[in-house]
Amino acid sequence: MTYCVGLWLRDGLVMLADTRTNAGVDNISTFSKMYTATAPGERMLCLMAAGNLAITQAVWNHLGEGVMLEDGRHTLFSVPTMFRAAQLVGAAIRAVYATDGPTLKAQGVGFDVSIMLGGQIAGGPVRLYLVYAAGNFIEATPDTPFLQIGEHKYGKPILDRALRHESSLEDGVKLTLVSMDSTLRSNLTVGMPLDLLVYEAGTQLIRTQRRITEEEPYFRELRESWSEALREAYRSMPGPDWA
Amino acid sequence: MTYCVGLWLRDGLVMLADTRTNAGVDNISTFSKMYTATAPGERMLCLMAAGNLAITQAVWNHLGEGVMLEDGRHTLFSVPTMFRAAQLVGAAIRAVYATDGPTLKAQGVGFDVSIMLGGQIAGGPVRLYLVYAAGNFIEATPDTPFLQIGEHKYGKPILDRALRHESSLEDGVKLTLVSMDSTLRSNLTVGMPLDLLVYEAGTQLIRTQRRITEEEPYFRELRESWSEALREAYRSMPGPDWA
Repeated sequence: MTYCVGLWLRDGLVMLADTRTNAGVDNISTFSKMYTATAPGERMLCLMAAGNLAITQAVWNHLGEGVMLEDGRHTLFSVPTMFRAAQLVGAAIRAVYATDGPTLKAQGVGFDVSIMLGGQIAGGPVRLYLVYAAGNFIEATPDTPFLQIGEHKYGKPILDRALRHESSLEDGVKLTLVSMDSTLRSNLTVGMPLDLLVYEAGTQLIRTQRRITEEEPYFRELRESWSEALREAYRSMPGPDWA
Repeated sequence: MTYCVGLWLRDGLVMLADTRTNAGVDNISTFSKMYTATAPGERMLCLMAAGNLAITQAVWNHLGEGVMLEDGRHTLFSVPTMFRAAQLVGAAIRAVYATDGPTLKAQGVGFDVSIMLGGQIAGGPVRLYLVYAAGNFIEATPDTPFLQIGEHKYGKPILDRALRHESSLEDGVKLTLVSMDSTLRSNLTVGMPLDLLVYEAGTQLIRTQRRITEEEPYFRELRESWSEALREAYRSMPGPDWA
């Protein structure tokens, strides 16, 4: 499995991915699930992928070599808008499906892939998409300013409770790391290290891109202080008068 | 779906169940998933069920009418130990499986049931079991003092972080309600009202059994103060110096 979360905030984007891949529980590896395509000052696109690793790597290669849209062959560096970029990712997924789908189906393997795409192209707004295995997609809105792929349930409650579109990028970093930590603690198929990207709206530049390892002091401190804060929080709440 | 959680604490048991059943998303109903069998001062047993409602109701009826064990027909009121009570629940599940299993399988419906059983019979310890669809079962231990059935992922992180076997019954009530609230907020197939039972070790009496509705002032206060405490907790944590 995988856990990736993307935040679509007023001030920009926060994107966080784990790096564990597994085939069963006795064959686990580390692969980055985050890809970027940037032309500083002109465009900043970040992708995160969940699902079958052969499929997600093939999609990434198709995107690199160019995929046909109605007006010709495009890459993430040539599409004029984020909407067209999301269409391009969808087209790349469908290209892989056309090649691999029938054989996978014949062998009883699902065509399992989902890709998150966030970014900004100069002149347009910041957008965050989730592209499905059929190549169709949805977009984050102010009502639901975060998207998740993979093992999303453990880390959802904290985002449902605390995250707003107006949250700062710094709060977004803390909340995605807490959401990821909740998932790491409860599910073996999501694992360290983590890939984090922070993007500030209007810059078309990556503000922060960081590989967070087990040894990262900030992450260790966050894990401990969050657990302590939760314990303090429930201790300080009054008990029911009927229990 | 369903969410039920049971805590096996030094001082006793806390058991909490939602009441939503659904067949698809357009046919939802309210059914209690908690059953008790008590002889005050002699035994206190509490069951919570997840899975196919026809199966769980059939199991409960078998338990009421008596199920054959090696030494004759028993009910939850006649078994001499909690271990034998768990065996009885397993035997009741297998009796339903013998009757309904083949037809369900022929129609492509899984035999989906899991039952949590907690309680104490005078002279023995407090025990908490999770009985599977095959009638086999596991038991909570000090390392993992809680068991869950149904939609367990959303509500697991808070228990993993905060619950200990040594936690008080009052803290257990707070933590199960917070764990349930996290699930209610994120998953439509788990719904109010809730059934809560608190048992104090050595009494063989129900200390508290309560139906918690949307209007319950304590639960409303807990939901709000918990969300506020979480927001306060992440705001008070330092940000990373690299973001």
